[in-house]
Amino acid sequence: MTYQYHNPVAIRFGSQAVGELRAVLGDRRVVVVTFPEARDLGLVARLQELLGSSLAHVEERVQPNPDVQELTSMYESFWREHASTEAIVALGGGSAIDTAKVLMVGTDSGRLDELVSVLEGGRSFAPKRVKPLIAIPTTAGTGSEVTPWATVWDRASGRKHSLHLRETWPETAIVDPDLMLTLPPSVTLPSGLDALSHALESIWNVNANPISDTFAVAAARGVLATLPALMTEPQNLELRSAMALAALQAGLAFSNTKTALAHSISYEMTLRHGLTHGIACSFTLPMILGRVIGLDTRRDALFSTIFDGQLSDAPNRLSRFLNSLGVATDFGDYGVSGEEAAQMIRSALGGVRGKNFFAAGAWKER
Amino acid sequence: MTYQYHNPVAIRFGSQAVGELRAVLGDRRVVVVTFPEARDLGLVARLQELLGSSLAHVEERVQPNPDVQELTSMYESFWREHASTEAIVALGGGSAIDTAKVLMVGTDSGRLDELVSVLEGGRSFAPKRVKPLIAIPTTAGTGSEVTPWATVWDRASGRKHSLHLRETWPETAIVDPDLMLTLPPSVTLPSGLDALSHALESIWNVNANPISDTFAVAAARGVLATLPALMTEPQNLELRSAMALAALQAGLAFSNTKTALAHSISYEMTLRHGLTHGIACSFTLPMILGRVIGLDTRRDALFSTIFDGQLSDAPNRLSRFLNSLGVATDFGDYGVSGEEAAQMIRSALGGVRGKNFFAAGAWKER
Repeated sequence: MTYQYHNPVAIRFGSQAVGELRAVLGDRRVVVVTFPEARDLGLVARLQELLGSSLAHVEERVQPNPDVQELTSMYESFWREHASTEAIVALGGGSAIDTAKVLMVGTDSGRLDELVSVLEGGRSFAPKRVKPLIAIPTTAGTGSEVTPWATVWDRASGRKHSLHLRETWPETAIVDPDLMLTLPPSVTLPSGLDALSHALESIWNVNANPISDTFAVAAARGVLATLPALMTEPQNLELRSAMALAALQAGLAFSNTKTALAHSISYEMTLRHGLTHGIACSFTLPMILGRVIGLDTRRDALFSTIFDGQLSDAPNRLSRFLNSLGVATDFGDYGVSGEEAAQMIRSALGGVRGKNFFAAGAWKER
Repeated sequence: MTYQYHNPVAIRFGSQAVGELRAVLGDRRVVVVTFPEARDLGLVARLQELLGSSLAHVEERVQPNPDVQELTSMYESFWREHASTEAIVALGGGSAIDTAKVLMVGTDSGRLDELVSVLEGGRSFAPKRVKPLIAIPTTAGTGSEVTPWATVWDRASGRKHSLHLRETWPETAIVDPDLMLTLPPSVTLPSGLDALSHALESIWNVNANPISDTFAVAAARGVLATLPALMTEPQNLELRSAMALAALQAGLAFSNTKTALAHSISYEMTLRHGLTHGIACSFTLPMILGRVIGLDTRRDALFSTIFDGQLSDAPNRLSRFLNSLGVATDFGDYGVSGEEAAQMIRSALGGVRGKNFFAAGAWKER
């Protein structure tokens, strides 16, 4: 049995790391892609100061969960007006980085529908024009700064596309915990739980391997040790750094495994019950952990390391952890009946991410 | 304080992974670089079978510790006769992989002395011609399959050069523990101890960071848990796999930190006292560990994890580990007087690698 691991992203990490942006870019001219609030937070001014005359344009129309319809004019104006730009800098959460990953891939026509039709057809695609991407996350959770994929929504047709090319790895991730000091609790909590979910999902994954596991264990231990303290001391730079590191490690883990059952369930919980992504993909973690312990010696050893050797108590401990952060861990707490939950799990096991779950068979037999 | 981590090498790992070589290469034509004994071990035949008509040439003149004089004709015939080859496959220990890293970089003249003069001058250099490298280690220790550097000796002028370019990262490392099943104890032991040294040296290093530390702890724990059992059961594939993984993790750690004091000392021990590299760079580890414990909380926590929480006993435990493998841990055991040893350490602290040691100051004061 063989496995693969590959993550080509160059990482710069630490307080004030964003100050190294100019050194990373050299003399390349760039377009910045960011979210509308970045200007009021002083982030646009900071980048203008850092980039000087290298800054060709700031695209600040990024929307949460980027949709084909909103992306179209942004994409087409980027390739019409800035086709000669030499790199893209994405500053923001997962949506800003995912939006930049769409922009970086240039179709022959310069039209987004050409890219969307490739995504819809699931065809392989080698873009002739690609802009290198420097990703600067402002939240600790998404991991998008070290993965090659982006989620593109198409609400008009009720579909969700995944962009994932050899060319869409960021060139560099700059992870600066200073940028996270002002995040509100409503972002810190679900982002942190998303990272925890990335870590655990990469372990109970058919694509798990010793390199991804090494990162996943460190990431899960980091989130468990850091997130509760961070919720009470949101301006503590050391805690923000520890949480940023854990989220980065989780990204490095699941960048090579993708997610699994908890994320597969989450999509339904978000669509049907409007649950925030970070909560939707984490409230089922104790239940899933309870099902998988005892199925595989190697994974049991990893869970044991994460939960300080208390393997049999680990699911309860994980529930208590989530409950202490105000996150309920039963489907019933979200108004989902036992029957609907069972149906949702069955359906999730058959989904694209659900098929990454290593123990679907054992689950079904119970 | 910021740090960087970057390792772009794509990794394929596991029993029979070498069978994926053709998939890794696609239809590229290749030159294989290997050691003279590879043919008798059946390795050349294996590659011929795997590569078929994609194999342009087998260069099997690799010598231990490759020297400029031996490399010259190999380099010049490679660039004269195989300049159109599309990739290089290196199969062997560190010397084969290092030799391939020299060959992969093409000078304008096609002459090696042009490259050597750049190395001597320490000038920056952007080669116009570079062949991608697929590295297949046959030992578990060097880590060269996931680092961008090669050591080139120039015995005639008594010098040692380090080739280290942005272009000399291998494209892919294929780590197949099957290839290590027949290694004699005289190779298994020093290779394994070299890996242990890479792991510990990357921790007590000024370039240490949380990503390299994550790999270093896993690597050191792996070597300590595996090497003694492997020495008694050299044909155990599970133990060979565990040792190959530990060596790979150590490579991923020190690929971003380089080595430190133990390696700096080792060069003198090898030159003056003829000690094998893996022994020369590991017999001082307990002494150095004894000096650094207590100097830095973060590093103490890592050593504690490596040595199962027994921090104060860690140096003794490491000595007993080495002694149990037949490796003496005092300079005196190698015929080095206390005075010579003290002088050697002082000199090593001032060397290029010695300057990576995070606690040179504290050492000198004692």
